[in-house]
Amino acid sequence: MEFRLIDRIRAHTAQQRDDVKLGIGDDAAVLAVPAGQELVVAIDTMVEGVHFPRGTSPEDIGWKALAVNLSDLAAMGATPAWALLALTMPRNDAAVTADFVDGLATGFFELAQSWRLALVGGDTTSGPLCLSVAVHGFVPPGQALTRSGARAGDIVLVTGTLGDAAAGLHLLQRGEHEAALIGRLNRPTPRLSAGLALRGQASACLDVSDGLIADLGHVAEASGLGAHIDAGLLPLSPSMLAMFDDEQARMFALTGGDDYELCFTVPANRVADVQADLARIGCGATRIGRMVEGAGVQVLDANGEPMAISRKGWDHFAA
Amino acid sequence: MEFRLIDRIRAHTAQQRDDVKLGIGDDAAVLAVPAGQELVVAIDTMVEGVHFPRGTSPEDIGWKALAVNLSDLAAMGATPAWALLALTMPRNDAAVTADFVDGLATGFFELAQSWRLALVGGDTTSGPLCLSVAVHGFVPPGQALTRSGARAGDIVLVTGTLGDAAAGLHLLQRGEHEAALIGRLNRPTPRLSAGLALRGQASACLDVSDGLIADLGHVAEASGLGAHIDAGLLPLSPSMLAMFDDEQARMFALTGGDDYELCFTVPANRVADVQADLARIGCGATRIGRMVEGAGVQVLDANGEPMAISRKGWDHFAA
Repeated sequence: MEFRLIDRIRAHTAQQRDDVKLGIGDDAAVLAVPAGQELVVAIDTMVEGVHFPRGTSPEDIGWKALAVNLSDLAAMGATPAWALLALTMPRNDAAVTADFVDGLATGFFELAQSWRLALVGGDTTSGPLCLSVAVHGFVPPGQALTRSGARAGDIVLVTGTLGDAAAGLHLLQRGEHEAALIGRLNRPTPRLSAGLALRGQASACLDVSDGLIADLGHVAEASGLGAHIDAGLLPLSPSMLAMFDDEQARMFALTGGDDYELCFTVPANRVADVQADLARIGCGATRIGRMVEGAGVQVLDANGEPMAISRKGWDHFAA
Repeated sequence: MEFRLIDRIRAHTAQQRDDVKLGIGDDAAVLAVPAGQELVVAIDTMVEGVHFPRGTSPEDIGWKALAVNLSDLAAMGATPAWALLALTMPRNDAAVTADFVDGLATGFFELAQSWRLALVGGDTTSGPLCLSVAVHGFVPPGQALTRSGARAGDIVLVTGTLGDAAAGLHLLQRGEHEAALIGRLNRPTPRLSAGLALRGQASACLDVSDGLIADLGHVAEASGLGAHIDAGLLPLSPSMLAMFDDEQARMFALTGGDDYELCFTVPANRVADVQADLARIGCGATRIGRMVEGAGVQVLDANGEPMAISRKGWDHFAA
């Protein structure tokens, strides 16, 4: 790189943490995990043209690269602490300038600082625009939220609203703009506070990154169960409903990815308390279905009949 | 991906560790750092066409992606424990098949298992072929080897021989093959045992990944010193000397990257003992220079005169 990339990124990082014994600038970082805490680690990659369209602002790219990782920590009920950033950027691309790097760093650290997260190391190399972020957090021993603890009869809930990011992407691809939906796509908010509140409450939890049906399918599979979703209960945002008809909105909610809401399960008699706990931190949570004996995820209509979902739309099963 | 990539990779991993509370398959891994140990973390990315030529065997790619990261742990004097792998692969590339993924995993786990390292998580996505690996290791508090502890008068040493990987790359680019040199390029051996032996001995340490002059420059800068290299003392392999003349061999040793040897500094009166310690684990170490007051790295000829180094070759300074 012509500019000293690491120094540029470093200049943006203000976060000091006592548990960082040695940060950016050596062969590796040296860190102290607090006594009595387990370490929670995740890694995620974003590639230009795959996870974000060319032309996405560098601030949004930097934010989202960290957000999708923090969402994994949220899904585990972990407190975030440290990140590593591996940044691959084209050497000869007029769009990838020192300003671009400053933008990436601005977006990344805007989110990092709100969670007191420190960037402790990284790697910069030339190649197609691509960011891998590894995040580290803490959880008390045995308290991590996993995908495998759901029991038959547990209620399935999701935080916030679903489908907005997919709706935003759909609009972008049509050349239209609607700030709220595109903001959900480009600036997802990891549900870290909700994840912490769900420790000891949720029997299973994950974040919705691939689409509700696919992701709830992971909980079902890991828990050795099936799941039913009541299509009529899906939480849909007013922004999405203003732009799309009900059927398309529900399709975004069921199959769209990139929402980074938490999907979790709770014993039926705990649902109201958990919703009240989440409400106290400003996080809505909607019951959308239940775990059942069996396997796979079924979407039920208002009459409790299974609906067939395809990429294009859905139909009632031919009974 | 058409094949279930993660399952395929997972099938290769046999390593069980008690400190892995939750491994691959959830939103994040849950890990227990041993009491009384600090955590050492690094991340490195390899991109096809940048860090390895297209056509490199998947086994070599998988090995090297882990090796360059373990080399960072070696340079810190850390014991390796866990890795995360973020794998980006083209969706429609005839060369990137299920066999290719098996090959990557074979190379990766061949190295991982020799160090009891567990793959605890990862991410797979489509895009240009690119691997980011994050590694985690342990070091007793305050004992990590850093770049900044060298003192004026300390002797500079390197493990093994230098320049072989650059010589191997040079041969590859000419369409020639010499197994030992190309092996050094494609299958670097991280100097983990040497790093452990240097704990409490070396005043500064790093791995030679960018070339000796550049990397020793990092030690010099971090320590607020300069460094002198005696060109005549550089350890050159018989394999390289059989293929290249002395001047070109020294140039590879001074400026070639990818050797992943350790470069470290030791107080003059400790050199013989440290060399003996390393010899006991089968690791040669050669004194090649010393740390001096000032700044920058100078290469000295047999008469102790500074030589000018350029990409093409070197000349005596015009005095």
